[in-house]
Amino acid sequence: MAYRLAIAGVTGAVGQEFLSIIEERNFPFQSLKVLASSRSAGKKMSFKGKEYTVEEMTKDSFKDVDVALFSAGASRSREFAPAAVKAGAVVVDNSSAYRMDPEVPLVIPEINPQAIKTHKGIIANPNCSTIIGIMPVWPLHKVNSVKRMVVSTYQAASGAGMSAMLELADQSREILDGKAPMMKVFPHQIAFNCFSHNSALGPNGYNEEETKLVKETRKIFDCQAIAITATCVRIPVMRAHCESINLEFTNPITPDEVRSILRSAPGVTVLDDREHNRFPMPIDATGKDNVFVGRIRQDESLPGNRGINLWVSGDQLRKGAALNAIQIAELL
Amino acid sequence: MAYRLAIAGVTGAVGQEFLSIIEERNFPFQSLKVLASSRSAGKKMSFKGKEYTVEEMTKDSFKDVDVALFSAGASRSREFAPAAVKAGAVVVDNSSAYRMDPEVPLVIPEINPQAIKTHKGIIANPNCSTIIGIMPVWPLHKVNSVKRMVVSTYQAASGAGMSAMLELADQSREILDGKAPMMKVFPHQIAFNCFSHNSALGPNGYNEEETKLVKETRKIFDCQAIAITATCVRIPVMRAHCESINLEFTNPITPDEVRSILRSAPGVTVLDDREHNRFPMPIDATGKDNVFVGRIRQDESLPGNRGINLWVSGDQLRKGAALNAIQIAELL
Repeated sequence: MAYRLAIAGVTGAVGQEFLSIIEERNFPFQSLKVLASSRSAGKKMSFKGKEYTVEEMTKDSFKDVDVALFSAGASRSREFAPAAVKAGAVVVDNSSAYRMDPEVPLVIPEINPQAIKTHKGIIANPNCSTIIGIMPVWPLHKVNSVKRMVVSTYQAASGAGMSAMLELADQSREILDGKAPMMKVFPHQIAFNCFSHNSALGPNGYNEEETKLVKETRKIFDCQAIAITATCVRIPVMRAHCESINLEFTNPITPDEVRSILRSAPGVTVLDDREHNRFPMPIDATGKDNVFVGRIRQDESLPGNRGINLWVSGDQLRKGAALNAIQIAELL
Repeated sequence: MAYRLAIAGVTGAVGQEFLSIIEERNFPFQSLKVLASSRSAGKKMSFKGKEYTVEEMTKDSFKDVDVALFSAGASRSREFAPAAVKAGAVVVDNSSAYRMDPEVPLVIPEINPQAIKTHKGIIANPNCSTIIGIMPVWPLHKVNSVKRMVVSTYQAASGAGMSAMLELADQSREILDGKAPMMKVFPHQIAFNCFSHNSALGPNGYNEEETKLVKETRKIFDCQAIAITATCVRIPVMRAHCESINLEFTNPITPDEVRSILRSAPGVTVLDDREHNRFPMPIDATGKDNVFVGRIRQDESLPGNRGINLWVSGDQLRKGAALNAIQIAELL
């Protein structure tokens, strides 16, 4: 039971994370194709003691491939995923291309593994801020429906790729050295600054990152009734997102109940040490599989103990992207 | 009409900001005493072409002082402010010592200047995150009562003083150089990281910064009915705070109405350019008097157009501290 595997976008930050998670989890594969754009074609990379040559992704790349992990951007997914499916592969797509397609399941294995069965060749991986935000919300929602979520994100540079992480480091050094920071990847200075997420704005003033969080959550929870509003922000952190989440429940719920539910939730680590003022931080979540959750408090601004505040942190490249996709492939 | 002025805590980040704002605004003074702890006593500082010697603050420091601007921490305010009042000075106190004292007015000049009249020698300056957060909320609350606020903060290092700003710079360089970051001021790494605000936690799990935001807003608005919940977070930014603010109003309100009200609000600058994805950032607010506000959106998760999301940024050392205190002194 070992797959013939392909990775599309292998040279990117998520592509590299795919490789390290495949190795770590001993994901079974009998062959591996490493695909990227023509720019990277011909590059050598060694993996698990073998050398691989990066091939340019074309529509013919997917012969003899069982599972193709895509993380090469939405336009490349739109261009090549149908060819991969036609060639017989199942595509796990990390881009936004197919997430809201009603024919395509959008899956977080801890939340809606059953959705995977309906796939017609493509399974979509949700957006990083959606996955990280709702991992600890789902176990609560299951026992006490969430009526409304107010989310504010604190997002890492990695969501914009490896070059954005380098830009954060470069700009930080430039500023510390008294130089003007160079802007190449982000539209604004990221070092020692923060800004509203750099995705396109819709007519209602919400950026795509915010709209994804709203729509993807409803699809994954299979619950159109859940009311969600989000404000997505980039902060100068490398690769773990944080989110401040305010939840309004249907019925009363206490912080102790929340902690108890989350302590037994898969993929979630409760770090809620009030005595030592020790709560989830990006440096806790970096490189970890689980989403960390803490600052579990009764929201006293809502009557009848129906409000809870949470603070979460999760690795954007792992559970926010590569790990979740590989968990989907493991489910197959 | 020129005051005999004293500055308590002159060597700190806010103390230094007092001086630069006094110079900038040509605040009238006929004499100036610069006070600090014994550690700094004897230091020379030149200001407006004159040399001043830092004196150790004692209970006898306030003879012949009309107005004393305090920013030396709550315990020093508790120790020395009563002596200053006894000596005939009016104290404008930037610490938390007297803010919730029912005998002490807590003033933001653009919001509740009338409260100043009730002072008995001490006027309290609100906490930075309160001032910056509620500056754009008040003009809206006046015309359409805010029922509930959900606030998540993105707070700069400067709130923990000059040494915290230096720590952010030092740690950033250490990490860029591959070294382990040194922790001296903050309990956790601040560079390339973020963490729940490092103030003491109450029995309900809220830290003091969050509790201040709730209680101070109610006192300043003279409105105990306003429901507020807050999550306060430090991010690696030097000296301007940001806040994501979700507002529930009593009556319907649209983003256009909000923009129109805020465009004519004193001390507020609307920066809400959806076309260019250009909204307030810490680097916009740094060194500026006004609080910047943008990302003005209808919160679609609340029925009947009663919800609005805002994103604000304000200089923690200026409007968040020194500027507001000097505006209070100007009102006197």
